[in-house]
Amino acid sequence: MTPGFEAYARLEEAFRRHALIEETIGVLHWDMAVMMPPGGARARAEQIADLRVLAHDMLTHERLAEDLAAAESDATGLDSWQAANLREMWRIWHHANALPSDLVAARSRATSECETVWRTARPRSDFRALRPSLEEVVRLTREAGVAKSEAFGRPLYDALMDEYEPDADARRVIVMLEDYAAFLPAFLDEVLATQARRCVPAEPPGPFSVADQKRLCRLMAETVGLDFDSARMDESLHPFSTGIADDSRITTRYNKADYSEALMGVLHESGHAMYERGLPRDWHRQPVGDARGMTLHESQSLLIEMQICRSRRFFEWAAPVIAKAFRASGPAWTPDNLYRLATRVRPGFIRVDADEVTYPAHIVLRTRLEMALMAGDLVVADLPGAWRDGLTELLDITPPDDRLGCMQDVHWPDGNFGYFPTYTLGAMAAAQLAAAARTAEPGIMSAIGRGDFTPLMRWLRSHVHGKGSLLSTDELLCEATGSPLDAAVFKAHLRDRYLEAA
Amino acid sequence: MTPGFEAYARLEEAFRRHALIEETIGVLHWDMAVMMPPGGARARAEQIADLRVLAHDMLTHERLAEDLAAAESDATGLDSWQAANLREMWRIWHHANALPSDLVAARSRATSECETVWRTARPRSDFRALRPSLEEVVRLTREAGVAKSEAFGRPLYDALMDEYEPDADARRVIVMLEDYAAFLPAFLDEVLATQARRCVPAEPPGPFSVADQKRLCRLMAETVGLDFDSARMDESLHPFSTGIADDSRITTRYNKADYSEALMGVLHESGHAMYERGLPRDWHRQPVGDARGMTLHESQSLLIEMQICRSRRFFEWAAPVIAKAFRASGPAWTPDNLYRLATRVRPGFIRVDADEVTYPAHIVLRTRLEMALMAGDLVVADLPGAWRDGLTELLDITPPDDRLGCMQDVHWPDGNFGYFPTYTLGAMAAAQLAAAARTAEPGIMSAIGRGDFTPLMRWLRSHVHGKGSLLSTDELLCEATGSPLDAAVFKAHLRDRYLEAA
Repeated sequence: MTPGFEAYARLEEAFRRHALIEETIGVLHWDMAVMMPPGGARARAEQIADLRVLAHDMLTHERLAEDLAAAESDATGLDSWQAANLREMWRIWHHANALPSDLVAARSRATSECETVWRTARPRSDFRALRPSLEEVVRLTREAGVAKSEAFGRPLYDALMDEYEPDADARRVIVMLEDYAAFLPAFLDEVLATQARRCVPAEPPGPFSVADQKRLCRLMAETVGLDFDSARMDESLHPFSTGIADDSRITTRYNKADYSEALMGVLHESGHAMYERGLPRDWHRQPVGDARGMTLHESQSLLIEMQICRSRRFFEWAAPVIAKAFRASGPAWTPDNLYRLATRVRPGFIRVDADEVTYPAHIVLRTRLEMALMAGDLVVADLPGAWRDGLTELLDITPPDDRLGCMQDVHWPDGNFGYFPTYTLGAMAAAQLAAAARTAEPGIMSAIGRGDFTPLMRWLRSHVHGKGSLLSTDELLCEATGSPLDAAVFKAHLRDRYLEAA
Repeated sequence: MTPGFEAYARLEEAFRRHALIEETIGVLHWDMAVMMPPGGARARAEQIADLRVLAHDMLTHERLAEDLAAAESDATGLDSWQAANLREMWRIWHHANALPSDLVAARSRATSECETVWRTARPRSDFRALRPSLEEVVRLTREAGVAKSEAFGRPLYDALMDEYEPDADARRVIVMLEDYAAFLPAFLDEVLATQARRCVPAEPPGPFSVADQKRLCRLMAETVGLDFDSARMDESLHPFSTGIADDSRITTRYNKADYSEALMGVLHESGHAMYERGLPRDWHRQPVGDARGMTLHESQSLLIEMQICRSRRFFEWAAPVIAKAFRASGPAWTPDNLYRLATRVRPGFIRVDADEVTYPAHIVLRTRLEMALMAGDLVVADLPGAWRDGLTELLDITPPDDRLGCMQDVHWPDGNFGYFPTYTLGAMAAAQLAAAARTAEPGIMSAIGRGDFTPLMRWLRSHVHGKGSLLSTDELLCEATGSPLDAAVFKAHLRDRYLEAA
C-alpha cells in the first residue's frame, strides 16, 4: 500500500465512526420528536449538543487534515468510488472546519430549545413565546453562515444551502423559483377555470378511525416497498422520515375528517425511506454512500407521492383498496373521484397540505424571507407581518394567525435555513425522473395500475438510490434523464395533469 | 484556585461529558428493547459499541489520569461532596483503565448480539441457538474479569460484582445467600403449612383488557410519584427501568389472565425510577450524583413493590381502586383477598414472578452458576442441566424447558455477571429501610392506607435518594437504619408476614 492509500484507509475508519455518531444523533432526534416526554427536553438538548461537538472534534482533528492531504496528493490508486468518497470527505471536512466548536454546541442547544418551544407555542399560535429562541437560532445560523461564506469564498446563502444541496448556486435557484412565481398567476387561473368547468368531486364521508387509517397507511407503505421487519411508522406533530437502511422510521399525523392527509404523508415519507434503503450497501457509513442531497431526497418522496400516487393509474388500483380499508362504498370511492380529489388545486395556508401547483409558491415565500433574515434585511420580530404580506402577494390569501402562517414549519426552529428551496428543486427533479423512467420502462405505469411498485423501484435503485453521492445532482440527472435540472419538464407535467380536457 | 482545584474542576467537566455519553447509550438501549424493528439490531450494536469505546477513550485519556492525581494530591480545598465525587471518579477510572479498548468494543458487540438472539430464541426455548453467542459473552466477560481482578488485586467475581455493587465482598455475599438457602427449606414448609390452614384466596375472574391494565398501571405509578410529563411507560419482553430524573422510562408486560403481574411490575419499576428522580440535583451528571449501586437500587424497587404494595395497609386503599379499574365487584376484590393473593407463596420457575420467600432461592441458583461459569468450573453447554439440577435441589421443582429455566433472564446475554446477588441484598436492605422509616415516621403506613406515598417518599429522598453516592451502601444503611446490611431484619419481616396467625 502507498502512503496515500494508507491515509485513505484511515480516513474510511474515521468517517465510519463519524457516521455512527450521526446515526446516534438521528435516533436521539427521532425519540425527541416521537417518544420523549416533555420533561426530557433540556437533557436531550445537552445530549445532542455534546454528540455534535464530539462529531465536530473528530472532523477538526489535526490527523484527519493530514490524512486528507496525504490521500489527495497520492490518489492515483483510488477507484472512482474511492475518489468520490475522498471528495465527499473533503466537503464534510470543510463544513466542520469552518465553524468553531463552541458555535456548534451553541447552535445545537439553541435549535433543540427552539424546537421544544415551537412544539407548545405553535398550537397556541403564540409567536411572542417563540420569538426569543427563534432570534437566537437566526443569530447563530447567520454567524455560521458568515464563517462558512468566508471559508468557502461563496455568498452566505450559498454556503448555507450547501449543507443541504452540495454545490448549490443560489442565483440559479432564485431564477428558477422566481420564474415559477411569474408563471403561477396566469397558470393558476387557467387551472382553477378548468376545475370549475367540471363537477365538484365528492368528499368521502368520514370520520375515519385512526386504527383504520393506520392499517391502510401501513399497507400502502408496504406496497411502495417498506418492510416492517426493518421499519417503524409512528405519529409526530410534523411528519418526517429518518433512520438507516435497516431501520427506517417514518411518521405521520392523522386527521379523522380526511384520511388522505396521513395517507399521502406516508406515501411521501416512504419515498424518502426507500431512497435511504436503496443506497449502495458497499459504501454504508461512508460519505459517498450517503444520499446525494435534499434535492434528490425530495425528488424521491415527491416522485412517489405526487408523480405516482396522485396519478389516474395509481387510483385504478388504490381506490377499491382504500374503500375496503374503511368498509365503504359509493360514488365518492371511484378511481376517478379519488383522482380528482388528489389533484384538486386549492390555494391554502399550509405548505405540507398544498397541492402540486401552489406548493412552489410556499417555497418562494420561505426562500425570500429566509434570504432576507440571513442578509439582515428582515428581523424576526417582523416575520409574521412579512409572511402575511408575502402569501397575500403570491396566492392572494392571508393567514388569520401565525399557526397557519410563519409558525407552521419546524425548519426554522431547527435552524434549517437554505433547506426550503430543495422542496421545489426536488419537485422538478421528480418530474424529470418520472418522465425518464416511464420512457425507459413502459411497463412501470401499468404495474402501478396493479399496485406493483417493483419495476419503478428497480429503475430508481439503479439510476438514483444506488448511486449514493458518486455523482453531483446535475450529473446524476444527466445520466438518468439526459439533462440537468430543468424546470420545463415540471411545468409540462403540470399542464398535462391540470389542464387536461376531460 | 489551587492547581489541585483547577484539576478537579476539569475533572467535573470531563465526567459531565462522560455522563452524557452514558445517557445516550441508555436511550439507544431503551429504543433497542422497546421500539427498534428487528432489522436494526446489527446497526444498533455498532452504534452502542462505538459509544462505549468513545466513553472508554475519555476515561483512559492521559490527561484525565494527570488531573486525578493532581486533584488527589491537593484535595484539602474539596468539601465532602467534592471529595466523594473524586473518590467515585477514581472508581470509574479504575474500571475503565483495567480494560483495553478492543475488549470494550468486543464485549459491547457480543452482548448486543446475544441479547438480540435471546429475544427470538427464548420464546422457542432454543438454547442451541443461544449457546454460541452466550459462550462468546461468557468468554469476554471472564477476560474482563481477569483483567479487573489483576488491576484491583481482588478475586475475579468480586471485581465483576464491583461494577454493580461498589466494594462488594463476594465472601460476605455468599455467606448471606447460603445462610438463606439453609434457612429456606424449614421456613418454606412452615409457610406452606400456615397457608394450607387458611381458605384458598379467590382468583379475580379475567380476562383483563390491556387498555384497562394500562390505565390502572399508570394511575398506580402516578400514586407512587411518577409524573408522566417527565416519564413514559411502555411494553417490553423483560420489564426494566431506565432514563434520567426528568425522563424516566419504565416498561412492563401484560398478561390478560392476571393483571397483577403488570401492576406489580410497574410498582417495582416505579420504585427504581423514583430513586433516579430523587438523586441530588446539584450533582447531576457527576459520579457522586449517581445511584449508589444496585443493592440500594433494588432496595428501592422492592421497598415499593414488596414492603409497601404487598402490605395489608396498601390493599385497604388499593383494592377498591383496582376493582373499579376493571368495573368489577365481589368477594375476590376485597382488601383481605387481594392481600392474600399478593402474599401467596408458591415455588415457581420464573424469578420475576417469584414470591418474596422463594425469590432468594432463584438468586442463590444464579449466583452459584455464574460463579462457576466465571471460575471456569462450568461451561455454557452444561448450563441447562446444571440449572435444572440446581432448582430441583433448592425448591424441589424442575423446569420443563429452558424458556422456564436458564433462558428466562436477559442478564447473562447482556453480560451482567455479578449483578444477580444485588436482588437479594436489595430485598434485605429494603426490609431494613422500611422498618426504619416506619419507626421514624409512624404516619407513613397510615398515609399508604389512604393511597398517599408522600410521607414515605419524603423519608426516602432524605435518607436514600438524595445521598447519591456520597456514602458507601453500608454507611448509608448505618445512618438510615442504625446498622449495616443485616439479613436478620429481612427474615424477621418474612416471619411476621408469612407466619402471621390469622
